[in-house]
Amino acid sequence: MDNLAHFGLIGLGTMGAALAQNIAEKGYPIAVYNRTTSVTDEFMANAGDLAPRLIPAKSLEELVAAITPPRAIILMVPAGPVVDQQIEALSPLLQDGDLIIDAGNANYADTERRDRQSEGETYDFMGIGVSGGEEGARHGPSIMVGGKPAQWDRVGEMLRAISAKYDGEPCAALMGPGGAGHFVKMVHNGIEYADMQMIAETYALMRDGMGFDATRIAETFEAWNKGPLASYLIEISGKVARAVDPIAGGPMLDAILDAAGQKGTGRWTVIEAQKLAVAIPVIEAAVVARNLSAQVAARARGADVFGAMPQSLPKDALDTDTLEAALIAGKILCYAQGFDMLGRASEEFGWKLPMPEIARIWRNGCIIRSEMLNDMASALAANPGENLIFADPFTRLVKENEAALRKVVIAATGAGIAVPALAAGLSWFDAMRTPRGSANMIQAQRDFFGAHGYKRLDGKDAPHGPWWDKTAG
Amino acid sequence: MDNLAHFGLIGLGTMGAALAQNIAEKGYPIAVYNRTTSVTDEFMANAGDLAPRLIPAKSLEELVAAITPPRAIILMVPAGPVVDQQIEALSPLLQDGDLIIDAGNANYADTERRDRQSEGETYDFMGIGVSGGEEGARHGPSIMVGGKPAQWDRVGEMLRAISAKYDGEPCAALMGPGGAGHFVKMVHNGIEYADMQMIAETYALMRDGMGFDATRIAETFEAWNKGPLASYLIEISGKVARAVDPIAGGPMLDAILDAAGQKGTGRWTVIEAQKLAVAIPVIEAAVVARNLSAQVAARARGADVFGAMPQSLPKDALDTDTLEAALIAGKILCYAQGFDMLGRASEEFGWKLPMPEIARIWRNGCIIRSEMLNDMASALAANPGENLIFADPFTRLVKENEAALRKVVIAATGAGIAVPALAAGLSWFDAMRTPRGSANMIQAQRDFFGAHGYKRLDGKDAPHGPWWDKTAG
Repeated sequence: MDNLAHFGLIGLGTMGAALAQNIAEKGYPIAVYNRTTSVTDEFMANAGDLAPRLIPAKSLEELVAAITPPRAIILMVPAGPVVDQQIEALSPLLQDGDLIIDAGNANYADTERRDRQSEGETYDFMGIGVSGGEEGARHGPSIMVGGKPAQWDRVGEMLRAISAKYDGEPCAALMGPGGAGHFVKMVHNGIEYADMQMIAETYALMRDGMGFDATRIAETFEAWNKGPLASYLIEISGKVARAVDPIAGGPMLDAILDAAGQKGTGRWTVIEAQKLAVAIPVIEAAVVARNLSAQVAARARGADVFGAMPQSLPKDALDTDTLEAALIAGKILCYAQGFDMLGRASEEFGWKLPMPEIARIWRNGCIIRSEMLNDMASALAANPGENLIFADPFTRLVKENEAALRKVVIAATGAGIAVPALAAGLSWFDAMRTPRGSANMIQAQRDFFGAHGYKRLDGKDAPHGPWWDKTAG
Repeated sequence: MDNLAHFGLIGLGTMGAALAQNIAEKGYPIAVYNRTTSVTDEFMANAGDLAPRLIPAKSLEELVAAITPPRAIILMVPAGPVVDQQIEALSPLLQDGDLIIDAGNANYADTERRDRQSEGETYDFMGIGVSGGEEGARHGPSIMVGGKPAQWDRVGEMLRAISAKYDGEPCAALMGPGGAGHFVKMVHNGIEYADMQMIAETYALMRDGMGFDATRIAETFEAWNKGPLASYLIEISGKVARAVDPIAGGPMLDAILDAAGQKGTGRWTVIEAQKLAVAIPVIEAAVVARNLSAQVAARARGADVFGAMPQSLPKDALDTDTLEAALIAGKILCYAQGFDMLGRASEEFGWKLPMPEIARIWRNGCIIRSEMLNDMASALAANPGENLIFADPFTRLVKENEAALRKVVIAATGAGIAVPALAAGLSWFDAMRTPRGSANMIQAQRDFFGAHGYKRLDGKDAPHGPWWDKTAG
């Protein structure tokens, strides 16, 4: 590596500032620019040891001049129109071989469009998904790269250097062309929604169903974090359950309103799954649950009118081992759906997504990082094209834990504790082992009212039922 | 009405031919055109008594010349680009005051776009949703009209005349401007998916869980069709269960492959609900179930690997009265979600959708027509802006039947009979009466990893947890 700045970064918000510091810390000089200059000044004032490798610029012209061609300029600005405005402002200043990298939370379709628009322009374009929050951006995120192999060759060394590591392996990789990186990031976030929802459901079962106090809930998550569920989200669930409210003094969780926010990537995942006709019911249930949680007034009214839920579980109906086993099963079923979606997208868009590599770069740096993803990477590598539930050790784990999941869903349903994500996982699993389902009724109805036709089990070519002549008459 | 043709119709496929005959039969002369002339010839050859009011045209020019201004020309061509092509071909031939009516299955967003594009053109444009299949189109569909009041004044008389009637009231009404008609039609179809799925789930419970043969299943649906569930879909479920396979001689249902097809409107409903952040989990579950049903090979494999589902229910676990009650509850919860979605769309788009009128025009002609929709129309009229579950008699019906729904979901879950739609309805209902949910855990997690903040129950302004300083450091 030479001492010239080949990199630039636009947008010194929380994530952009952290990423720039990370890049400088790994030895890459980088020019930085923010529309509001005072933000840049403050950033430099706090740069400390990193200041020698950070070059502040007061204008886009200064920024471009401070970078030695071929330039690679990272955009870390709000997703949406701002990205297009930045590209438009920047492109006249660039020359052939320069590269604009959108590292924000773009919708993959926008990245595809921007990639197409860059053809014949002075600049190249690529979109990368970065997960891990501020902490990840600063010290090592998971980086899902979309772009051409030649682009990856240019910036891969730096991206691997700044990424999180798992057993020394960098959590950054090329996913595929165009919007592939942002697509994988989107599905990551969908899985994140589902992981969080299933954890929240076990929390509700402990709090409302089993009468656990916050300490016991924290202890349970801490114990789970030493077993097969070991993961960042379980770890922080223990921490937030352990936390004390600095204002009122009780458990922090008890002071927080139960209305979940969302920024849209979960919703995007559901929309894209619908377009691909792939079933991701656990993620769908998680998004629905967030929407419902926001209806605080309607829920209070429902409790008034119909009687409040939930009720306590019968004594000894569930124990924490059963809950843990149910969550293991639910998690595997959810990831099976997520990887299934990625596989279908890969086929549909001709991306050739590297499935084991996706699991590998999710092992650290990102929000859903977990030990289980290490086994998933191996399982996906050993069983190419296979659904996770048909790949060991996950086949075995599902077999071992499905009874617990069934027990939990039944107990929760009995007590009116809504566990939509766990229930959706189980329902998907039951459907996936039902060789003879009930959709023949739906096909018969569709043929009856719309002459839509059906296939016969015996393969004979007689697509309409005996009712058809009559209804058509 | 005069004897001049003011109406024209393009596209003499199944639906278009039926609609043209319906219009002629009600006394309106109509000029008809089909790109393939032999289709027009055949249509006229079969016109019988209606021939004097049907004017065949061999070209668009002939069609336009055969209609007396102001013209109203109905497009009944495949949804998508073909509609745009027809508008483009037709518009130069039209004059101010002429009206193009897209009566196909358009996505409402396309209808909005076409409406905007018509501004300043020689023609007016409107989009109408028509439900009821061929039979409905021929003898009386339900018609959901999008457009301006002046356009409705022009064509409303004819549309009311050709529509289905319920107690003499026409099942055709103005929903709102632009894409409002096609949007309502889309949600109708989403509800249709859900209705069909819940019926299929009760079918699976009877067939697999309770060991009923086809005759007993048919008898059950026939009995239900005399009670609160009386509806077209229950009626035809009895008929298809009763039908005998003309090839193999056994029950027709047993010969049909359990892989459901779909044309996309259910999927569209889920996508639009996601965009509106409204929870329609029963419809989502129905779409997922169709997707899963199509995975025939994977389901067979799942049965091999994990053991086949479903199992029989324990003897006397359920009876048909309990099943009926569960389906009543599930149906109400599903419609509550569908009308909720319409209400949210109405606010979002400023449409002022006439909610009771929607229920009224669904009472006959369309696939989801039912007696219960009559009560829904009254309930929505008496409780404007209210969720259906908070409007009598539906509050009472939900109270009376929720225990049965819970019993059915628990029994089905125990036996591995996938009832995703019924379960999603119950889970939504339980969440809607849970004043204190578990989303506080999700908010705590989001704040922990992303400093997203939360609200406190006590209203105090302290949006971050005590963990935050540490993770930001």
